[in-house]
Amino acid sequence: MSERNDRKVTRATADLVAREANVSRIAVSRAFNPNASLKPEKRDRILKIARELNYTPDMAARSLVTRRSHLVGMIVPDVCSPWESQEIDALTTALQAEGFATLLFKVKADFSMDQTLLTYMRGFNPDSVIAFTENVEPAVLSGFLDRAVPVYIIYDDAEEFAAKRSTSLYDRLVVRQKEGIEQAVALLQGYGARRVAYLGGKRQSLANTERERIITQVLAERGMAPPVVVPGDYTYDTAYRATLDLFRVGDGADAIFASNDVAAFGAIDALRHELSLSVPGDVKVVGFDDIPQSHWKSYNLTTVRIDLADRVRALVRLILRRLKTPGADPLVETLSTRLVVRGTVG
Amino acid sequence: MSERNDRKVTRATADLVAREANVSRIAVSRAFNPNASLKPEKRDRILKIARELNYTPDMAARSLVTRRSHLVGMIVPDVCSPWESQEIDALTTALQAEGFATLLFKVKADFSMDQTLLTYMRGFNPDSVIAFTENVEPAVLSGFLDRAVPVYIIYDDAEEFAAKRSTSLYDRLVVRQKEGIEQAVALLQGYGARRVAYLGGKRQSLANTERERIITQVLAERGMAPPVVVPGDYTYDTAYRATLDLFRVGDGADAIFASNDVAAFGAIDALRHELSLSVPGDVKVVGFDDIPQSHWKSYNLTTVRIDLADRVRALVRLILRRLKTPGADPLVETLSTRLVVRGTVG
Repeated sequence: MSERNDRKVTRATADLVAREANVSRIAVSRAFNPNASLKPEKRDRILKIARELNYTPDMAARSLVTRRSHLVGMIVPDVCSPWESQEIDALTTALQAEGFATLLFKVKADFSMDQTLLTYMRGFNPDSVIAFTENVEPAVLSGFLDRAVPVYIIYDDAEEFAAKRSTSLYDRLVVRQKEGIEQAVALLQGYGARRVAYLGGKRQSLANTERERIITQVLAERGMAPPVVVPGDYTYDTAYRATLDLFRVGDGADAIFASNDVAAFGAIDALRHELSLSVPGDVKVVGFDDIPQSHWKSYNLTTVRIDLADRVRALVRLILRRLKTPGADPLVETLSTRLVVRGTVG
Repeated sequence: MSERNDRKVTRATADLVAREANVSRIAVSRAFNPNASLKPEKRDRILKIARELNYTPDMAARSLVTRRSHLVGMIVPDVCSPWESQEIDALTTALQAEGFATLLFKVKADFSMDQTLLTYMRGFNPDSVIAFTENVEPAVLSGFLDRAVPVYIIYDDAEEFAAKRSTSLYDRLVVRQKEGIEQAVALLQGYGARRVAYLGGKRQSLANTERERIITQVLAERGMAPPVVVPGDYTYDTAYRATLDLFRVGDGADAIFASNDVAAFGAIDALRHELSLSVPGDVKVVGFDDIPQSHWKSYNLTTVRIDLADRVRALVRLILRRLKTPGADPLVETLSTRLVVRGTVG
C-alpha cells in the first residue's frame, strides 16, 4: 500500500504543465481531449509531464465552468435485450471517440419513469440524453434537464404522434420500418403464405405498436387477411410458449412475423423441437433487428434489418449538432430498414 | 420551444428547499438519494417543492466538496461479448439501486490500455473502477486514480500471479473455475470421452489461460490425455471455422470444451450443419458462462455456470465496503462455479 500512501492528492495547474512542457495552455487541454488533433509525440510529451506533475483536468471542476459534463445519459429498460445491449455497447464506443462517456439509467420494467430517478439523473448534468417515448415522455424529461436537449428514437408515424403530445424541444432519430416490412410481406406472399401471425413485443413498446400497425396495413394493401396477433414481450421463452399456444390452442399459421429476432428464435425452436414442424417448409418465420445471432446456422433467420452502425452514427451526429447549436429547431435524422433474406422463408 | 426559453437556469439552494418543505437540510439530501430511507410521502413532498424551486443537488458541485462523484468506472473491451453486456446491464441496475451510475470505458481490441483514455477516465474522478488485468495492470491503473481503489475480476491462481506483479492496492473478485471444470470433465469421462479438444478464447484473456491450464490439469488428474488446443477468440464465427479445421485438417475429437458458450454454439453448428455429426452422439460439447441463450432448444448446452447475480452482488459489496473503509487492506470475494447439465453431453 506504500505507493498509495505516498500519492500526491494535490494537483498541478494546467498553466504549470504548459510552462514545463513549453507549450500553450490550449495545447495542454487538446492533449487531454482524445478527439482533438495534436502531434502524437507532442501529446505524449504533454501527458508525460502532466503525469509527473500529477495533473488531470477534473471533469467535475471543468463542468462547473464550461457547464459541460462530457456525459451522455441513456435511459434504457431495467433488463436490456441483446439488441439494446449491442446499441449501448456501440454507442459508448462512438461517444468515447468524441470525448463523451455514456451514463446508463435503468427504468423499471413497468416503464414507469420514477421522479427520484429523473432527479438523480439531472444531478449528473448530462450534455445530452437519449430516450424512448415509452420510457419517459419528452415533456416530463425536459422538466428534469437544465440545458440538455433529449434525443428520442421514434418509429414511423409515432413521431407525429409523439410531437403532437409535446411542446418541449427534442431531437429525433426516426426509424422508418415500412420498407423492410413491405419486402418481408412480399417475400412471404411470394412463397404462398396466407395466414400470417404477428408475434408481438412488449405491450408498451412503440416500436411494437408500429410494427403491428404497419404489418396489418401492408397485408391489407396486398389483399391479404389481417395478422393473427399473438401477445409476446420480445423474449425467447414467451415467444416459445406463445407459439405452442398458437398451434395447440389456436388455429396455427403458415407464417410468423416476430417482433424481434429473439422472439423469432423462440418461435423457430417451438416449431421444430416441440411441434415437429419444419421451418420454412411448414411455417415461414421472419424476425426484426438482425442481431448477430440471426446468422447462426441453427436459426439462419430472414429478418428486417435496422443497421446498428448507421443508427449509432446518426445518434452521435444529432448529439454533436445539438451541442454546437443549442438553440436550433428540432433536429431529425432518418433511418430506413431492409429485409435480409436467409433460410427461414422459402 | 417556448417552454425551453422560459426555463430557469438558476437553482434554489438546499436550505431554501428545506425551509419551504419545513424539513431538515439532511432530509433534503436524503430525498435525493434513491437509496436513503425516507417516508415516501415525505420524499415526494420534498421532491415536489424542489422541482417547484428548480433545485437539484449538482453532482459535479457536490463532487468537489465530498470528493464523491457517484460514478463507478468499468473498463471493458471495445466490443462486448453477450456475457460482458449482461454483466454491464446487471451491474448498472445494482449500482443504481445504491445511488451510483456506471461509466463505461472501452479499451481497444488489442487490449492495450491507452494513456489518453486512462487520463480521460481519471477526469471523471470515479468512486471505484472495475477492471480486468488483461485490459490494464493494477499498477498502471492506480497511477491514474486519485482515491478510487480498483476492483479486479481474477480467475483462480491468476490472483497470486497478478498480486505478485503489483504493489498497488486493489480489491479482488476471485472466480474459482476448478469445481465446475472438474464436474464437466468427470461427466465427459463418464460418457466415454477420450480425446478432448479445448476451443480457446482470446489469447490475452486470463480467464482463457486459466481455463486451459485447469482443464489440462484435471484431465491429467483423471488419467486422460492432454487437450487438443484449438485457438479461438470467444466468437461464434471463429469457433465455427476452428471446428471445421479440427475435423477436416486435424484428427477431430470426441468432446469439445469451449472457452465460452458462444464458442460452443459455433462448434455445435459446425458439427451438426456442416460436418453432419451428431451432438452429443458423435461429439460431446461443454461451454462456459451459462448465458441465457444456453437453454435455447437449438443448443440446450451443458455448461460451466458462473452465476451472474452472485457475481454482481459480490462486486457491489466490494465497492461499498471499500468506500466505507478507504484504508482497508485488499478486500476479496470469492465465487465458485458449477456444471449445468443439459443436452450436449450424453
